Amino acid sequence: MAQLLTDAEIAARLGQLSGWTLSGKEIQLVRTFKNFVEAIAFVNQLVEPAEAAGHHPDIAISYNKVTVSVTTHDAGGLTNTDFELAAVISGLG
Amino acid sequence: MAQLLTDAEIAARLGQLSGWTLSGKEIQLVRTFKNFVEAIAFVNQLVEPAEAAGHHPDIAISYNKVTVSVTTHDAGGLTNTDFELAAVISGLG
Repeated sequence: MAQLLTDAEIAARLGQLSGWTLSGKEIQLVRTFKNFVEAIAFVNQLVEPAEAAGHHPDIAISYNKVTVSVTTHDAGGLTNTDFELAAVISGLG
Repeated sequence: MAQLLTDAEIAARLGQLSGWTLSGKEIQLVRTFKNFVEAIAFVNQLVEPAEAAGHHPDIAISYNKVTVSVTTHDAGGLTNTDFELAAVISGLG
């Protein structure tokens, strides 16, 4: 099982990401787009990196706003894998 | 502004839909798929009817599970438009 990060490690990793915030045992990114169609286009961009990592964010879509939440459910919190996926998601258009 | 349905009207309309449940001022449908990719494929199917109706469901994706929530935010509750969109979504693959 993946190893949980310590609070200090989480803080350090979060500091290297832009736009992500800590929410309980997850890290979250909120992205706002011009409209629903563009929001869905962004969600489609998440598929390839999620499948490649074998790690899937929870996604909430409300019209033009997409909230992406990442955690390692099996480990019960945040692991390296979460921050690796978050970094890839941050690089999406 | 669209007219809010009464509780009796909501109950009657819900009775005509399969799989939708009332959750506060929204109606919700939960669909479970084989995996994340198929869940996203279903979400993509929502785009055309939502754009055609000018009415957009809130969508939550958790791996293979998609929760679709419909309400008329401007009216502060459920209207005819919500049940029309729900009926179209029910007909998707």
